[in-house]
Amino acid sequence: MVIKKFDPWSVVDVEDYGKLIEIFGIEPLTEELLNELPFLNRYFARRIVFGHRDFQIIVRAIKENKEYAVMSGIKPSGIFHLGSKMTAEQIIYLQRLSPKAKVFYAIADIEAWEDNGIPFEKSVKYALENIADLITLGIDLKRTYVYFQSRELRVMRWGYFFARGITYNLLEAIYGEKHLGMYMSAMVQVGDILLPQHPDFGGPKPTVVPVGADQDPHIRLTRDLSKKYFRKFNFIPPAAVYHKLQWSLKGPGFKMSKRDPMSYITLKDSLPEVKRKIMNAYTGGRETAELQRKIGGQPERCAVYQLIMYHFDDENRVKKIYEECKQGLRLCGECKREVAEIFAKWLENYQRRRESNLDKARQVVDYALSRS
Amino acid sequence: MVIKKFDPWSVVDVEDYGKLIEIFGIEPLTEELLNELPFLNRYFARRIVFGHRDFQIIVRAIKENKEYAVMSGIKPSGIFHLGSKMTAEQIIYLQRLSPKAKVFYAIADIEAWEDNGIPFEKSVKYALENIADLITLGIDLKRTYVYFQSRELRVMRWGYFFARGITYNLLEAIYGEKHLGMYMSAMVQVGDILLPQHPDFGGPKPTVVPVGADQDPHIRLTRDLSKKYFRKFNFIPPAAVYHKLQWSLKGPGFKMSKRDPMSYITLKDSLPEVKRKIMNAYTGGRETAELQRKIGGQPERCAVYQLIMYHFDDENRVKKIYEECKQGLRLCGECKREVAEIFAKWLENYQRRRESNLDKARQVVDYALSRS
Repeated sequence: MVIKKFDPWSVVDVEDYGKLIEIFGIEPLTEELLNELPFLNRYFARRIVFGHRDFQIIVRAIKENKEYAVMSGIKPSGIFHLGSKMTAEQIIYLQRLSPKAKVFYAIADIEAWEDNGIPFEKSVKYALENIADLITLGIDLKRTYVYFQSRELRVMRWGYFFARGITYNLLEAIYGEKHLGMYMSAMVQVGDILLPQHPDFGGPKPTVVPVGADQDPHIRLTRDLSKKYFRKFNFIPPAAVYHKLQWSLKGPGFKMSKRDPMSYITLKDSLPEVKRKIMNAYTGGRETAELQRKIGGQPERCAVYQLIMYHFDDENRVKKIYEECKQGLRLCGECKREVAEIFAKWLENYQRRRESNLDKARQVVDYALSRS
Repeated sequence: MVIKKFDPWSVVDVEDYGKLIEIFGIEPLTEELLNELPFLNRYFARRIVFGHRDFQIIVRAIKENKEYAVMSGIKPSGIFHLGSKMTAEQIIYLQRLSPKAKVFYAIADIEAWEDNGIPFEKSVKYALENIADLITLGIDLKRTYVYFQSRELRVMRWGYFFARGITYNLLEAIYGEKHLGMYMSAMVQVGDILLPQHPDFGGPKPTVVPVGADQDPHIRLTRDLSKKYFRKFNFIPPAAVYHKLQWSLKGPGFKMSKRDPMSYITLKDSLPEVKRKIMNAYTGGRETAELQRKIGGQPERCAVYQLIMYHFDDENRVKKIYEECKQGLRLCGECKREVAEIFAKWLENYQRRRESNLDKARQVVDYALSRS
């Protein structure tokens, strides 16, 4: 087990992810495997990516300079928040690892409809925003296939195809009690994940899906189905890399929630908004300043520390914040102000670039719409 | 109620269909409505079509020379049997009622996969055979849109669309406990039935679906959904006409079954086969010839009489068979031979014409395949 509890990079929900590894068979990311990668991004280096399934097939493809696919997507139901940013940066990293990597990016408008009641036409608006972020974060569009689920005949057809024989009991066990549309949407997602291996795209190939740990049931179901239909399609079971989830700004145990904008930061928030959210975030501070100076803070319970550790590259500065907090040399007020400044500065620059990418995003969306 | 028990045309399962009318709100076909039609086919004239929903919207469209759609299809899992022939003849009749009628004909390859495990590629072979029958029975191809479900983006998309919010309880109540694929296939069928009203086909229009009485749950579900999404699509709830089912050759209470070829006749059966099946069919004969001569036979319980009554146009001859049977003037052996001869003669001619239509059928199928 590579995850240790008290270092600057491994402070989140360690036990829970350990369970995923023990019970569901996600493999831990070993030093050995990491050492074989040409370079690491922040999430890999800091073990925010904590596990994988079959990632060695991708490592091998990179080494042998062979084609592989990076499959992911977005439910177009809102503006990118820091969680969506994390997944997007993973996609981009996995694409950059090799010139032979191709990204398949699903605009999950069927899921947005089933889950959030967003009509397909309205998804287009969000898709535009989401693609602008994907571009700004650094995707190589020349090696990216962007599509709308509701306009991609192949994934819709495969959704119907793979549903044969799937029992209600299985669905309930995986997804809980949901309405038919949600289950159907899950089957489309199976189609999404296997799309890179469709004959139209050259057939079987190594594929990796970067996901949050909570998405593993989808991955397991898809891998099972890829084996069930091996004789027909020769599928290679898709690999996955799993990252820890980012908490709500309310702290550990809370999830970001659309209903509470103070719980998350989006990439279109205004700078004053972002500062206000960070200043109101949950920290790992002690009851009194005096106590904190004496026994130190708890970065492992701090939403503000998580923010900077997940999203800020400068390793030395992050380490310094961690150490100062642990040693009681830094109080929460000043720390929040510092992190808010760092964030606001980054966001200001980001939003300027994002704005300049909207036209390009529109072209991508128009092209995706024109194909069906 | 128009259905009377003892006349040559109303001998099948009268009580059961009466219940459908009482409980589920299927309306009986009144003389009044029938009188408004330009002409009747055998099924309407003989009240094998026993009920409808909203059929007056079609009658009105015919009178006002306005466009309407006839929607139907086939599960491509075998050769047309006499039941499929009945539905096909209904489609063709409803098309002939007006030059403004347009047929939408679904090759239900998604259903064939979910229900029978027939891969989409294999459906093509059956589709070819089925279309050859449709042509031979007299469809006007110039006014017919034939498509494969698995290649028709719009019905697949609508399948996903209409599934939102449909609960497992509702599905179980309508269809019984089925696997996910069967439920998804039912949603595609909703898409099929509403396809004529898709904006791409000119939007809302009167539509009629000719179906066997057992298909009413589909019709009810689709009508409910057409009302639920009225504000979005302005759907006109699809009308339906219901025909009685044809029994198995084993007699009343039996259903035709793929596992028992002696239970049904297909349009590709050889002439000796057909004769053998008819000679082995269940009749309404009495225990002894003597008794039959004395009290007469029971055409209302006779699979051979049903065959001739459902499928043979010559009204006087059918009436004669009925009367002679009732009066004990005709025994089952000779009757079977006569019916077998009539059938074989018809089938011989039919199969010759069918053969000559295979090329045309291939063009229709190729065109349907080329569109996606």
